[in-house]
Amino acid sequence: MPLYFWPMNYQKIINGIFKEVSECKDNGIVASYIPALKKVNPNKFGVSLCTIKNDCFGVGDFEEKFSIQSISKVFTLTLALKLIGVKLWKRVDVEPSGDPFNSLVQLEFEKGIPRNPLINSGALVVCDVLISELKNPKKELLQFVQKLANNKNINYNLEVMQSETEHGFKNAAHVNLMKSFNNIENDVDEVLDLYYHMCSLEMTCSELATSFLIFSNGGKLSYTNEQIITRSASKRINATILTCGFYDESGEFAFRVGLPGKSGVGGGIVAIYPNEYAITVWSPKLNKNGNSLKGMTVLEKFTTKTASSIF
Amino acid sequence: MPLYFWPMNYQKIINGIFKEVSECKDNGIVASYIPALKKVNPNKFGVSLCTIKNDCFGVGDFEEKFSIQSISKVFTLTLALKLIGVKLWKRVDVEPSGDPFNSLVQLEFEKGIPRNPLINSGALVVCDVLISELKNPKKELLQFVQKLANNKNINYNLEVMQSETEHGFKNAAHVNLMKSFNNIENDVDEVLDLYYHMCSLEMTCSELATSFLIFSNGGKLSYTNEQIITRSASKRINATILTCGFYDESGEFAFRVGLPGKSGVGGGIVAIYPNEYAITVWSPKLNKNGNSLKGMTVLEKFTTKTASSIF
Amino acid sequence: MPLYFWPMNYQKIINGIFKEVSECKDNGIVASYIPALKKVNPNKFGVSLCTIKNDCFGVGDFEEKFSIQSISKVFTLTLALKLIGVKLWKRVDVEPSGDPFNSLVQLEFEKGIPRNPLINSGALVVCDVLISELKNPKKELLQFVQKLANNKNINYNLEVMQSETEHGFKNAAHVNLMKSFNNIENDVDEVLDLYYHMCSLEMTCSELATSFLIFSNGGKLSYTNEQIITRSASKRINATILTCGFYDESGEFAFRVGLPGKSGVGGGIVAIYPNEYAITVWSPKLNKNGNSLKGMTVLEKFTTKTASSIF
Amino acid sequence: MPLYFWPMNYQKIINGIFKEVSECKDNGIVASYIPALKKVNPNKFGVSLCTIKNDCFGVGDFEEKFSIQSISKVFTLTLALKLIGVKLWKRVDVEPSGDPFNSLVQLEFEKGIPRNPLINSGALVVCDVLISELKNPKKELLQFVQKLANNKNINYNLEVMQSETEHGFKNAAHVNLMKSFNNIENDVDEVLDLYYHMCSLEMTCSELATSFLIFSNGGKLSYTNEQIITRSASKRINATILTCGFYDESGEFAFRVGLPGKSGVGGGIVAIYPNEYAITVWSPKLNKNGNSLKGMTVLEKFTTKTASSIF
Repeated sequence: MPLYFWPMNYQKIINGIFKEVSECKDNGIVASYIPALKKVNPNKFGVSLCTIKNDCFGVGDFEEKFSIQSISKVFTLTLALKLIGVKLWKRVDVEPSGDPFNSLVQLEFEKGIPRNPLINSGALVVCDVLISELKNPKKELLQFVQKLANNKNINYNLEVMQSETEHGFKNAAHVNLMKSFNNIENDVDEVLDLYYHMCSLEMTCSELATSFLIFSNGGKLSYTNEQIITRSASKRINATILTCGFYDESGEFAFRVGLPGKSGVGGGIVAIYPNEYAITVWSPKLNKNGNSLKGMTVLEKFTTKTASSIF
Repeated sequence: MPLYFWPMNYQKIINGIFKEVSECKDNGIVASYIPALKKVNPNKFGVSLCTIKNDCFGVGDFEEKFSIQSISKVFTLTLALKLIGVKLWKRVDVEPSGDPFNSLVQLEFEKGIPRNPLINSGALVVCDVLISELKNPKKELLQFVQKLANNKNINYNLEVMQSETEHGFKNAAHVNLMKSFNNIENDVDEVLDLYYHMCSLEMTCSELATSFLIFSNGGKLSYTNEQIITRSASKRINATILTCGFYDESGEFAFRVGLPGKSGVGGGIVAIYPNEYAITVWSPKLNKNGNSLKGMTVLEKFTTKTASSIF
Repeated sequence: MPLYFWPMNYQKIINGIFKEVSECKDNGIVASYIPALKKVNPNKFGVSLCTIKNDCFGVGDFEEKFSIQSISKVFTLTLALKLIGVKLWKRVDVEPSGDPFNSLVQLEFEKGIPRNPLINSGALVVCDVLISELKNPKKELLQFVQKLANNKNINYNLEVMQSETEHGFKNAAHVNLMKSFNNIENDVDEVLDLYYHMCSLEMTCSELATSFLIFSNGGKLSYTNEQIITRSASKRINATILTCGFYDESGEFAFRVGLPGKSGVGGGIVAIYPNEYAITVWSPKLNKNGNSLKGMTVLEKFTTKTASSIF
Repeated sequence: MPLYFWPMNYQKIINGIFKEVSECKDNGIVASYIPALKKVNPNKFGVSLCTIKNDCFGVGDFEEKFSIQSISKVFTLTLALKLIGVKLWKRVDVEPSGDPFNSLVQLEFEKGIPRNPLINSGALVVCDVLISELKNPKKELLQFVQKLANNKNINYNLEVMQSETEHGFKNAAHVNLMKSFNNIENDVDEVLDLYYHMCSLEMTCSELATSFLIFSNGGKLSYTNEQIITRSASKRINATILTCGFYDESGEFAFRVGLPGKSGVGGGIVAIYPNEYAITVWSPKLNKNGNSLKGMTVLEKFTTKTASSIF
């Protein structure tokens, strides 16, 4: 709950923090596991904030497209919940993984039930659900994201998609292992294809902030008031994002930033302040846990300055 | 943020839920790993809620003492943070464990640094800090809890303490393993002694709700306005409670209840709604993860009915 | 070293043990993970022993073909060592796994280097080597086995091979994981294809005993004296068979039987007494570790009675 | 089986290998986890071989006492088997551990049953057995070793014992964990005390070689023909030594040396050639797995030159 009851000057605040953080050196490293990601300019830096009253603010490279990578897992999760509801939780759990994000250990120990829908294995199960439920999953997923972002100009990047496919042997290991436990219904290659399309989505900071507003707004689109998912589902997605959104740094993010947030190896982070705003930061240099270094710093400073915290 | 802006009739709400849940059968099992816990009447059931405006409500056995067990770990954590501040985080992490609460696996893999201060190994490190910092740790811990609860009539149960000691070989394994990694400064037996005293604390539902109000109230005692810990420390403790308070069911609790909460094998659960209230439920029958079955149900119903959720 | 220095009446001894063990009830279960294996008659039971002097003995169904399954891993290992020598040990270790045979845990922890060439992942690496080194790996592997067995009438069973392929998602997980660690050079599907062909090899007890004589005979074919592998390589293969040949029961087999031995889920076991004989037992009912129940019993009785033991 | 049927000139052979290996540089590191071990002269180097015909040979520092450390686990195992026989195998398994020697992971996963009697946890269970069975376990263990070595001048080193006790928190973790699974009958401190006495045994290379002759000689003392353990027990101990004697390098030792062998962090290694000899090497510099570097080299060269191999 904000301590300020008058409208804050968000633009001024993000400008100030942007300037401050721009001047700091950072030692992060751009994700390099696929060539298509390595090519990004490491100095890109953008911040965007949108409120549930549809005010949007931005600074730096906030209108430039970048690869949202794992952040897209929140979109597939939301769509799957909309389609099959609580039945999803028979096939994927909601517990933090407590292990690095690409570990097969827990998955084997827990008989092919992924710990949560925001780790790779969980997102693969979610993709499997979409394939079973939708006629044209790739097209309908894209339309869903375009609707949330209120913007038709959002697409998969086929070069990134291709690059992921060629280096995705670990994901192929995950999906085959789950298939061996009967937790994948469709053909493994089809599941991987949707998964890599999902990861290759490109959006700008402002599009991403807009599209995450439904989680700040009880499941409703702020610009039409259409109820996309129930208020209860929206809260539960926030809870899952908070406990599981940062791989093995979820506790740290909750601890330092105090909001539900999701990161991607493309250097994007989006955080949600319920009933108020969604905020996105993009800076490609990552810390050792694969999360944007500047992104973490900006959000910690921002929530401190605006006294935004769910705690 | 509550959706109701007028004072809610909390007494009526908890009465209604208490009645409803009392009538349900539950198949939980009372903790039996020590004789002293096994003796409790499994049908005990109490609920208490206290607001930061110092209104307190209760129903059932809410004024009866019970063994708070692991809930006490929040008190030692708070006291240690007050004493040594952020230095604590060099010796214990803030990540969910993703494994059953008494597992030595992660502790060995992570070189004696416990995943968080609310699992057994983390609480043992916290006890080690208290022993290094305090002249009479057992006495001063008790005084600290009495102050938070605004009640001198809170004590260790020496029979429970003795019983834990005689069956605590796994905790002895933990503390010795951490000592082998140089993450325990004091004598292992002294650390275990403080730890078992801590676990043996007895409180009523209403005392427990009162004592947790500082986490709803930005670190201040609601009845004197004394600042016990900083607002920021209070928020961070809430974040840690949310991500780590329910062993391997933390995600589930965040997901279903939507508040930070901590459970104990004595059957107690306490949950915090920031800026509003703390609520305690006590019912000794546990689910397979060691958390009170009725406690989970009451809190899920209560937060749904009152639309309390941090998300 | 045999205690008897005169020729033993092996035929009489195996007849006696065969009769004795036939009369015992056993509670084992036929492997059922693929339909093609499940069809076998569970009461099949054969024993064959061949000496390095080319005397061969047999009793029961010792001239009936069965699926040798994992026993075939010894053939691919031998062929790979013949082709690339000690370079093989850069890609696969020689340590016992200490974990069930299809576990991915160790493989991930040890960065894609399998523990030994007789677990699934290790055999997949060995198959990858054969594909890199041979023009027509499937044909040349078959010819190699036919040569060792001195018998052209040995083939892959394509129904078993097909059945394995359709249920082999866990092996696909292994090979993809190793590919992600760059320990697979060829296409994953090609590697799996050779692997499943290898597993589908069918041989009789007497063919299998004959083909393992090179390990009793210092690497030489007993019937032509051709040196197939060096004496040193032969000893090292025996050492690897002893420490790793029985999945998580290798210690038990060394302990009870006292000879190097290899088992397969088809119910076959072959054991080697250096400088003397190779012996094969086939009985499809397996114990909980996946090893033939009667096979273990026969070999324990046989080595006791003949005082054969390398220890 | 030796290829040479005339008596070999063992003295000449070990002299030659000793000289050759002395001239090589080695980069090993002396064990430093306890001060008492760190003090040893890293350049000490001795070899001794004794045959079952009671011929003994030696070169270098073969008559100097050193800390035999884990090699002593074979003595306690032998004594426990003599006392309770096969009942021992209900409390400890005979499988290779497949994990570093001080890992708690498997022990927890396997519910307090150690993988084998030659890892620390297994030896602690064996010590627990001795305490339950013997009136004065420390004295009787010493007498047993003196008898095997045919030498009264063998003792515990109390400084080493004390030093181990003060740094043995990991062993205390093991024994407490097993106690929590009810696999330790006696007081944990008493078990640790016997264990540390056992580890502190000091012997010379020639005493050690003599005392291991019973395993080459079917369980009989070669100098009196007294049957200490059955031939069958002797073979089974050899099998256990082969599969489990070198921690996570057991496969490597079997592979390179081809004999059952046991090492200790004091830099000693003893190997057994059934029906022929026992050989000891001592050189304190260890490889990364904690086994004597020169010891491994000497034994590999020796078994190659003399064509000694059980395979």
